[in-house]
Amino acid sequence: MPSKNPSSGDRILLSHGGGGVLMRRLVEDLILSALGNPVLNELADGAVLPAAKGRPVLTTDSFVIKPLFFRGGDIGKLSICGTVNDLAAMGAVPRYIALSLIIEEGFGIESLRRILESAAETANAAGVRVVAGDTKVVERGAADGLFITTTGLGYAKGGTELGPSRVRPGDIVIVNGTIGDHGIAVISERESLEFEAAVDSDVAPLGGLVGELLSDGHEIHFMRDPTRGGVAAALNELATASGSAIMLEEDSVPVRPAVVAACEMLGFDPLYVANEGKMLIVCPEDTAEGVLTTMRAHPLGASASIIGRIIDPSDVGPGRVLMKTSVGGTRIVDMPYGEQIPRIC
Amino acid sequence: MPSKNPSSGDRILLSHGGGGVLMRRLVEDLILSALGNPVLNELADGAVLPAAKGRPVLTTDSFVIKPLFFRGGDIGKLSICGTVNDLAAMGAVPRYIALSLIIEEGFGIESLRRILESAAETANAAGVRVVAGDTKVVERGAADGLFITTTGLGYAKGGTELGPSRVRPGDIVIVNGTIGDHGIAVISERESLEFEAAVDSDVAPLGGLVGELLSDGHEIHFMRDPTRGGVAAALNELATASGSAIMLEEDSVPVRPAVVAACEMLGFDPLYVANEGKMLIVCPEDTAEGVLTTMRAHPLGASASIIGRIIDPSDVGPGRVLMKTSVGGTRIVDMPYGEQIPRIC
Repeated sequence: MPSKNPSSGDRILLSHGGGGVLMRRLVEDLILSALGNPVLNELADGAVLPAAKGRPVLTTDSFVIKPLFFRGGDIGKLSICGTVNDLAAMGAVPRYIALSLIIEEGFGIESLRRILESAAETANAAGVRVVAGDTKVVERGAADGLFITTTGLGYAKGGTELGPSRVRPGDIVIVNGTIGDHGIAVISERESLEFEAAVDSDVAPLGGLVGELLSDGHEIHFMRDPTRGGVAAALNELATASGSAIMLEEDSVPVRPAVVAACEMLGFDPLYVANEGKMLIVCPEDTAEGVLTTMRAHPLGASASIIGRIIDPSDVGPGRVLMKTSVGGTRIVDMPYGEQIPRIC
Repeated sequence: MPSKNPSSGDRILLSHGGGGVLMRRLVEDLILSALGNPVLNELADGAVLPAAKGRPVLTTDSFVIKPLFFRGGDIGKLSICGTVNDLAAMGAVPRYIALSLIIEEGFGIESLRRILESAAETANAAGVRVVAGDTKVVERGAADGLFITTTGLGYAKGGTELGPSRVRPGDIVIVNGTIGDHGIAVISERESLEFEAAVDSDVAPLGGLVGELLSDGHEIHFMRDPTRGGVAAALNELATASGSAIMLEEDSVPVRPAVVAACEMLGFDPLYVANEGKMLIVCPEDTAEGVLTTMRAHPLGASASIIGRIIDPSDVGPGRVLMKTSVGGTRIVDMPYGEQIPRIC
């Protein structure tokens, strides 16, 4: 497919980051053509946004994933989803994104175009607009292709109180689908591993799913998207922050057979593998059925399941995460120490 | 000075970015101890901020400056100032910062601590709070030490209308002090050049200075901080966006003798050299004296000067920037094409 060449050559040059004519051309031909909208097109020092109701919620993430393209997504889609999902986890309606690029000299312009178009498509699907941006270019060897930092601004309604302090013994822990897909998809791509069944990343924007939960008025105590460190890290942080304990049911945790197989081969535990389209939801027991019904009516929550509950910490110690195993025992699900899979997001 | 060692060893490990115990320790011991505040300390997926009046203004910048420490500043100070100044240029009161780190494995923890403390000190001085953050670690060779991306959220009052479309022939162009200091300070450090008089970067947060201009009620049409590409790029962008033309007076443009000397030696033109503590202000002729008085009363505007004016574009063509030279001629000040000094911010 012939491609429109936005500037001198088909590779990014140091000069594309210099603040001059070449940079302007790159921004106009590539970035605005993918992500443009009236606010971004101003190319001002910042985006002046309409005054909005509710409490502003701000979140930021840098994406250094390797490789940039993987089964089910790419760094562009990921950079929008990751930030949208952080806003959703805080109970906010995602609205605006600021997107900053650090590009290695020599990076392919066609790859950059694909990534930006993927980011734009995802932003449209998620109902957010990219309103501010920046582009820096560093010399060959000073970065690894492309890093993207996205910052999200959303708004939470006055009544939406979410947080570890609201979590109580007896609360139910729900996840909207299978875990570990993203990590396994990325590591398979990176190491050129072939498993019997290929795994797609679950990367997806969860603002819509969470929005339906909130607008349906279900009482929810806590949400978090289990990315780096997986479900294990997210729940350990919750247990520590809330002074509670959590009991998972191994048989209830949805994991694709292909992910189970890959984890066995690689020596991973799916509980520790990153997700990019999953949300952990903690709610009172009597609202759990309603939450599940709303979630299952949404394409991104079709396999929503109860995976555990908050238990009395006096039995096992506050901050503990445990799991009833398939064979009837109980094991501790520790906080991961360091890195299981580097550069997963 | 003995330093508290926040984690295993005095270097950043890949595991510090893994979402586990080591990362938590890094965040708590190093990041929160420097930048902590009640919102950031929550370590939630995002920062829930109080509802605020005015129009939100969002801006983002990645900082890839080399070297990380230079005369007059470091990447931490720069990353706060750059974003604060972009908000100020939009007429917004800077309030909140999201700060994201991409760290190369092996980076010195003591250097990181100094950089974060510098960012914290600058944020305090600028009256902004770092409320959200992220930390990623990439393997040795996949980044060059440290990159920082900051995103700023501020609020503009309803009446503050600034932009290229407000600029009119006859308007005055003012700058708050000497130009080119930042670029020369950085290139001197990087290339280990020694000039007769060492030059400090001008890196400084301009929210206070601009706040006084706005609260004094001066009519201002346009502001921009001339960073990459210098005054020449900023004014060329303004001329193009406003369809106007600009005439500078070489004798009126404040440049330190040491910067003039360094530029002559290096073959640079100070108009194209980056600044990180300068603001270009365009205002009607009859408010210029008042603007200068307010600026000169502020430490960061003591050398504020009129450097040119907006002229009738029908004489020279819209989008043109010209300069009356010291010897009595007129020369074109073109948009820079590419890179004069890479990785200057």
